[in-house]
Amino acid sequence: MLIIGLDPSLSCTGWGIVAKSGSRVSHIANGQVRTDPKAPMAERLVTLDRELADVIARHAPDAGAVEEVFVNKNPQSTLKLGQARGVCLLALARAGLPVHEYATRLVKKAVVGTGGAEKAQVQAMLGVLLPGAQLAGADAADALAVALTHAQLAGSR
Amino acid sequence: MLIIGLDPSLSCTGWGIVAKSGSRVSHIANGQVRTDPKAPMAERLVTLDRELADVIARHAPDAGAVEEVFVNKNPQSTLKLGQARGVCLLALARAGLPVHEYATRLVKKAVVGTGGAEKAQVQAMLGVLLPGAQLAGADAADALAVALTHAQLAGSR
Repeated sequence: MLIIGLDPSLSCTGWGIVAKSGSRVSHIANGQVRTDPKAPMAERLVTLDRELADVIARHAPDAGAVEEVFVNKNPQSTLKLGQARGVCLLALARAGLPVHEYATRLVKKAVVGTGGAEKAQVQAMLGVLLPGAQLAGADAADALAVALTHAQLAGSR
Repeated sequence: MLIIGLDPSLSCTGWGIVAKSGSRVSHIANGQVRTDPKAPMAERLVTLDRELADVIARHAPDAGAVEEVFVNKNPQSTLKLGQARGVCLLALARAGLPVHEYATRLVKKAVVGTGGAEKAQVQAMLGVLLPGAQLAGADAADALAVALTHAQLAGSR
């Protein structure tokens, strides 16, 4: 089973794909979709949608996982994040994938073993759990972490 | 020229289409897309996307207009609104329409003549400006108001 994880943001959305076979999980691919901050909002969302559709078409994952976000920044940032997140959820569901959402603490617990882990610990554990994965960046790492979480928890919840 | 206006929300997105011919503006159609509050988020966004794509395919508008939102509700509501708004902007831009955003005060000023107008005044003026339009509801009315705003301001900005 192939699982795609997404870490949505308007400026740079991370994606990561892992394969689960029995209890073994391995890295397939990861990357980031950047959009032009100077372009109009609708155009940025089209770029995000198109790039995600391309990744999904290339890898044909079986399930999608996205981190639940708890936001307390300023409302306009939250609205922008929401717009990008809507496009991400849509891209997965429109491709017929079941979409799973995981709370940040659960992702950290699944990857590091404790819900209060630091970002650096998550990235270090990714190196251990997915040997050979070249991370495209911090957002791709977060996306792989949520894909890994679904790989570990799918079927056990 | 046909203009589609959208008033995005996760539970009920309004849409309204007007035709502009010279300085004359007339009503074409309006409606609302409701999504099931009990359905998972991704599924609700797919419903919204599918219904909007259907409206756009049926009417083939030339331009899209969406109200800018200034949000100060709780962050989770803002995030949800953002997700629906992202799908709305994407639906318009993916269909190749130029997407215009108008501040609420500008919409009220364009329709009623004053930026501080009440919602009821906006709806009453829609009856005058678009005679014969049967409003599908308050969200459809807001969508027609923003379409009308673009019809009045397009080319003059």
